[in-house]
This record gives sequence, structure tokens and C-alpha cells, in this order.
Amino acid sequence: MRRWCRSGLTLLFGAGLGAAATRLWSDGSGQDGRDSGLLSRLPVIPVSAVQASTLPADSSGGSGAVMKYGFPSLVNVKTRESYVTSYDPRTRTANWVIERLNPAALTGQSDRKYCEFKEDDSVHVFHRATNADYKGSGFDRGHLAAAGNHKWSQKAMEDTFYLSNVAPQNPHLNQKTWNNLEKLCRSLTKRYLNVYVCTGPLYLPRREANGNLYVRYQVIGRNHVAVPTHFFKVLILEQADGRGVELRSYVLPNEPVDEQIPLETFLVPIETIERASGLLFVPNIMKRTSSLQAITHK
Amino acid sequence: MRRWCRSGLTLLFGAGLGAAATRLWSDGSGQDGRDSGLLSRLPVIPVSAVQASTLPADSSGGSGAVMKYGFPSLVNVKTRESYVTSYDPRTRTANWVIERLNPAALTGQSDRKYCEFKEDDSVHVFHRATNADYKGSGFDRGHLAAAGNHKWSQKAMEDTFYLSNVAPQNPHLNQKTWNNLEKLCRSLTKRYLNVYVCTGPLYLPRREANGNLYVRYQVIGRNHVAVPTHFFKVLILEQADGRGVELRSYVLPNEPVDEQIPLETFLVPIETIERASGLLFVPNIMKRTSSLQAITHK
Repeated sequence: MRRWCRSGLTLLFGAGLGAAATRLWSDGSGQDGRDSGLLSRLPVIPVSAVQASTLPADSSGGSGAVMKYGFPSLVNVKTRESYVTSYDPRTRTANWVIERLNPAALTGQSDRKYCEFKEDDSVHVFHRATNADYKGSGFDRGHLAAAGNHKWSQKAMEDTFYLSNVAPQNPHLNQKTWNNLEKLCRSLTKRYLNVYVCTGPLYLPRREANGNLYVRYQVIGRNHVAVPTHFFKVLILEQADGRGVELRSYVLPNEPVDEQIPLETFLVPIETIERASGLLFVPNIMKRTSSLQAITHK
Repeated sequence: MRRWCRSGLTLLFGAGLGAAATRLWSDGSGQDGRDSGLLSRLPVIPVSAVQASTLPADSSGGSGAVMKYGFPSLVNVKTRESYVTSYDPRTRTANWVIERLNPAALTGQSDRKYCEFKEDDSVHVFHRATNADYKGSGFDRGHLAAAGNHKWSQKAMEDTFYLSNVAPQNPHLNQKTWNNLEKLCRSLTKRYLNVYVCTGPLYLPRREANGNLYVRYQVIGRNHVAVPTHFFKVLILEQADGRGVELRSYVLPNEPVDEQIPLETFLVPIETIERASGLLFVPNIMKRTSSLQAITHK
């Protein structure tokens, strides 16, 4: 893997644009604003004061701990037992969901056979996905915060079954390569103090025959639940020895993906996700560490 | 025009679904949640306490006055000299813009020849539209809050030239029928105490040949500024005699529209806009009046 490491506020992205990222963002827009003074101009999103000292390394879940590295936006934020999410009432799914994984969160007797997908009644009925919307659509109800990440508490696992934590996902992707990516996140808890995982949908443009770029995505059911064209996962990996933080950001298309393709193939620069999603990750992370390694592609 | 009038909290929409609305929302989803107990279940968006008594009828603009009937969402809200807006960093345009029109706001020496379209530097460079994005795109820089509504102050008029108050708009629509709709809003200030205007983009799905519904919209420029498929205008008309409030909600496609078609043809039930946009208007309005007349189509 190629690693990019910068200390302090002169962190630069972009030099490691891989093939996948070039495909995703084919307009050359990735060149904007990559001057070294950029980060000093970022409007940093205010983050509630959470002291690292109040977050013991061996603690299990709990949504308070999730916010250590801030939120990528402050839009319609909802707090659950073991994750935090931002809801998009127009697409009827989340903007993002953040979880914190560590061995304690992954251990317990919770069982998904006691869980059922359910409407999120904190969302207005006009803007809420229902199970009926998914029925017969050909899409899985794909977890954003994965059920298997929250074994520490049955309530925490049940909370991942709110349809606000779900997006229409290609069944092959959901059951194969996406599942492998979720397993990778869990396995990284053996090497890192905490693994913060932020997951969300993307709606990426494609160039059509007339030469113009178009965003095109299906909507399903009576409530027009948006089918994302892609999904992202941003991993914030906290090093056990306090040396700093590693960042891995993945984008996968919402279609069957051959399991033989190494997951590193889907690593992209964080800027690719920040531009496409309307979210910002780096400014908040930089408030919490002086050393950020951005791991891009193999 | 057909008028629907209900007092108190049992206000019902939907009976007046016109041809335009049926076209916009062709899935029959409009029937959801129309039980008489609906409004009591609405999660009402908190609104800063603004007393009607502090808003003299003859005052000109000023963004404080704009919020009397609340905001349709609380996402990335920005306050300008004479309008309030919510920004969508993913589409690089607004979710909505609210203005308050009355004779005082419409009167003054301000001149748009001194105004220039400008980037909104309160928006992160990754998520900001630029003039270069529009150049050669074939789309006008279409004002959401119209420049002509803010003659009371040169600064107020200049503020409408932020590109965060602009969306890519078909030139014919912008210069003809949309302009006529803006003129209609201004002319209504002769009959009403205040005319609150909320304007925004829509990204509506269409059924494609395979029978599924898809949202499809162009994006322009290096920053991928979204071209809305439609625009909405919601007019909250405050009756001078204190009898209550009238509501007119329009949806126009982002394409050439024959000026001979009466503007009333584009009236839709507010619910159509609320469902499609992810916004809510009625709950906040109902907190400010006990009588709301929803004017649908002719």
C-alpha cells in the first residue's frame, strides 16, 4: 500500500490519486484548492467537547465515544445506542453513519435473529423508508452501520435495523464484497486501539453519450427511496501507541463486485469522497491528532 | 382557483391533486399518512422566537423578519441581508431560500448593474459553485431569491448574487415564465400584508423504459453543480385583515415553458413539494395561524 504521511496542518492529498479515483472524478476537478494553505482556510465544523481521557481504550460501544473525531456534517444528526447518523429526508436514507469498533464492542451474546428491520418513526412519514418500499425491489436492505459490529448489546444491534441505517444495496455486493469489507473493519480492531468507521451513500455522475455528466439513480417503492450509485467507508484507525491516526477511504459501486478483487483496489483519496458527498472529514480529524497517515491505493 | 380551507390542526391536503401534481408524483404515494391525526404527529421544527409584534407591516427587508413562519429545514442555514437560505454542499446549490416581500422591500434605488455573481466563500472550496462552472454550460445563473425583490438596499440586492443563491436554470425558463412568476410574487404585495416566498430546486424521478423510476440530472463545471429537474416556489400570503394565511405552491420544470400557459397550471398541493424535497412547510405555518387556505389549481 502506498502511504502518505504529513504532520501538522500542511497535510496534502491528491498526489496518490489511483485509477479508481480518476474514474470516480473524471473531470480533473481534483486539482482545485490543493495549495498548501488550504487546511488553514477550512471552515472547521464545531465538535462537542469530548475529552480523549473519558474514552477508555477498552470500553465497548456507546454513541458518545463515536464523536471523538467529529462528524462530517451537522445535518439532522441522530444518536443511537452505538452509532451516530445524519439523515437525508430527500433520499430517505442516511448521509453518513459513524461507529466505533474495538474488541469490547465486537464481543457479546447479541443475536441478529432477534432483530427486525423497522421504520424510523423519528423521521416524518413523508420522508421515511418502509419495509414495503424494499419488497420486490430487487435490492437488499443494506446496513450502513453493520449489525455484526455491535454484539456488545442487543439494543445496540437492534438499533442498526432502523431503515434510516439502511440503503438499497445490490444483493451480491451486500452478501459478498461489502460483507468482506465489514469483516476487514472488524479484523483491524486487532491492530488498532479503536477503528472509527464512517459509512454512507454516494450519487456519482457519469458521462453520457452527449458528452455531459449526469447523476442518475433509481428510486424504489412508494416513498421513492434512493438507490445509491456507490457506497463509501472511511476508516479512522487509532494507533495503540499514540503515534497518530491512519485513514483508509473506500468507494465501491452498488453492483456485483468480484470477491477476487483485492479490497485495496477500492481505496481512494479522502478528497474524492469529500467532494462527491458534500462532507468533510479531514478538518475534524486534524483537530485530534498531529499525525495523519492517509493510506491510498496499493 | 380551487380553494381548500381548514381551521386548526385538522388541515387536510390531497383532495385537490391536480393534473400537474399527479404527473409529478405518479406512484400513488400521495395517499400515505393523510389521516386526520397526521398533523398532531408531525415533528415540528423548532423556530427561534420571533414575535409578530416585532415585525411591523410596513418594514422593509431584513433576514430576521423572514423567519416568521419558520424554516422548512434546519440544515446549513445562512442568513443574508434580506433572505435566509439552507445550503446543500452535495449539489452545490441551495436546498431553499426564503424572502419576505412587501411594498417597502420592493422600493428603492438599488440597481443590479452594480451587482456581480460571486462565489460564496462561506462554503468550503470543495463544495462551492464558481462562475467558471456556469460558463459555456448552456444554463443561466438563475436567482432563487430574485434580485428585483430587494430594491430597498443595494447590499440586500448584492447578496442575491452569491452563487449559493443561484442554480443552473434553462435560459428560456429563467427569462420568460420564471420571471413572470417572480413578477406575480411582487404584484401580490398589493393585496397581502406580506408575501413570504420560499424557492428551491427539485430532483424529481421519471419512469424509464424498464418500468423503474430514476432521478437523473446533469451536473456542470469542474465542481459538478447540479442542474435541478424542477423548481418550486411556495408563497405564504399574509392577509391584511388578520384573517389568516393563504398558501400557493408552484412547481415548474427546468425547461422552456410557453408563456401562454397560465401560471395557475403549475400550482400543486404543498404535500407534493414536501415529499419530493425532504422539507416541511405546514407544521411551522400552523404554529403561526389558525386558518390556512391552501390554494391548489384552477
